[in-house]
Amino acid sequence: MVDNLIAHINKFVQLDEAEADEVSKAITTISIKKKQFLLQPDHVCRANYFVSRGCMRLYFINRNGQEQITLFGIENWWITDYSSLETGKPSTYYLQAIEDSEIIILVKKTIDELFIKVPKMERYFRLILQKAYTATMRRFEYVRDQTDEERYRHFVALFPGFVQRIPQYMLASYLGFTPQFLSKIRGKKVRKSA
Amino acid sequence: MVDNLIAHINKFVQLDEAEADEVSKAITTISIKKKQFLLQPDHVCRANYFVSRGCMRLYFINRNGQEQITLFGIENWWITDYSSLETGKPSTYYLQAIEDSEIIILVKKTIDELFIKVPKMERYFRLILQKAYTATMRRFEYVRDQTDEERYRHFVALFPGFVQRIPQYMLASYLGFTPQFLSKIRGKKVRKSA
Repeated sequence: MVDNLIAHINKFVQLDEAEADEVSKAITTISIKKKQFLLQPDHVCRANYFVSRGCMRLYFINRNGQEQITLFGIENWWITDYSSLETGKPSTYYLQAIEDSEIIILVKKTIDELFIKVPKMERYFRLILQKAYTATMRRFEYVRDQTDEERYRHFVALFPGFVQRIPQYMLASYLGFTPQFLSKIRGKKVRKSA
Repeated sequence: MVDNLIAHINKFVQLDEAEADEVSKAITTISIKKKQFLLQPDHVCRANYFVSRGCMRLYFINRNGQEQITLFGIENWWITDYSSLETGKPSTYYLQAIEDSEIIILVKKTIDELFIKVPKMERYFRLILQKAYTATMRRFEYVRDQTDEERYRHFVALFPGFVQRIPQYMLASYLGFTPQFLSKIRGKKVRKSA
């Protein structure tokens, strides 16, 4: 499991053997079952989570009482509530496994120690966050600039395998439309021109 | 101008005198007039920009030929196209001054050198990006969970002075509704209950 993480880190920075060893010592691993939670509202988020296998979702309950999915985390993605993790304030999110998952845990205290021992990890997270930030901005722009159907087609083109893995109602929540609408456009044989 | 930046950095990490000196040596400053551009589409973004005074906007032209504002940058904000800056690929954005502005420029090559000379700067940008990322996620959630009017009221409550500084049509573009709609809700005397 650790090898996945080291390989991922090495895509962004080059760890030497001693540094990789420090990373390995800093993490813990956990196997969780589908539907288990790693975080719930009113709890402080204590760690960052790397999905080695499986799939997680970060969501909250909106004022209409509905689950609203903010983020999915599949293999090689970090997922957490950075705001709660950084500030120590209670989270408003649920972080839940939507498949049986293998998760690497990096707790807050250890993250801070690791940044001192292996400064490259600070760069790694800076680069990860930079990517996540620009991706979220793009996603935001797509909401404004694409029709619902285009946004769905775009998402499928970007993450073809992923769409098959998650329940339809979760994808609808993430993309911001009703399961009925998603079902309708999934049923279409002909791609609507843009 | 540099003092603003050093003070901002020191909110996140503590620079000693030598480190602050390295930061000062790494930057250049520029005064730009309202409507001047620091970046245009099809050009590679070469720097990150810190707004010492004034206001910038990052926008693109959507497929309906309209300006769509992704981001504003006011005092003490960094603003750039991180994607183009990191990958060296041409940008799709305009970065334009909407007031006469004093800007601190940190060019890509110098950023990389600075991270080696002053590793705390890597942490500073990691923390900045973490904040920007979580803010963008929140903004995204508000689009889903609030009515247009609520989103406007929320934005005004968060940035009261800012709303007075920018043209109405730009605020409408940023918040994702028509200038007419914005004009209508601005005209209301009574706050609509949530």
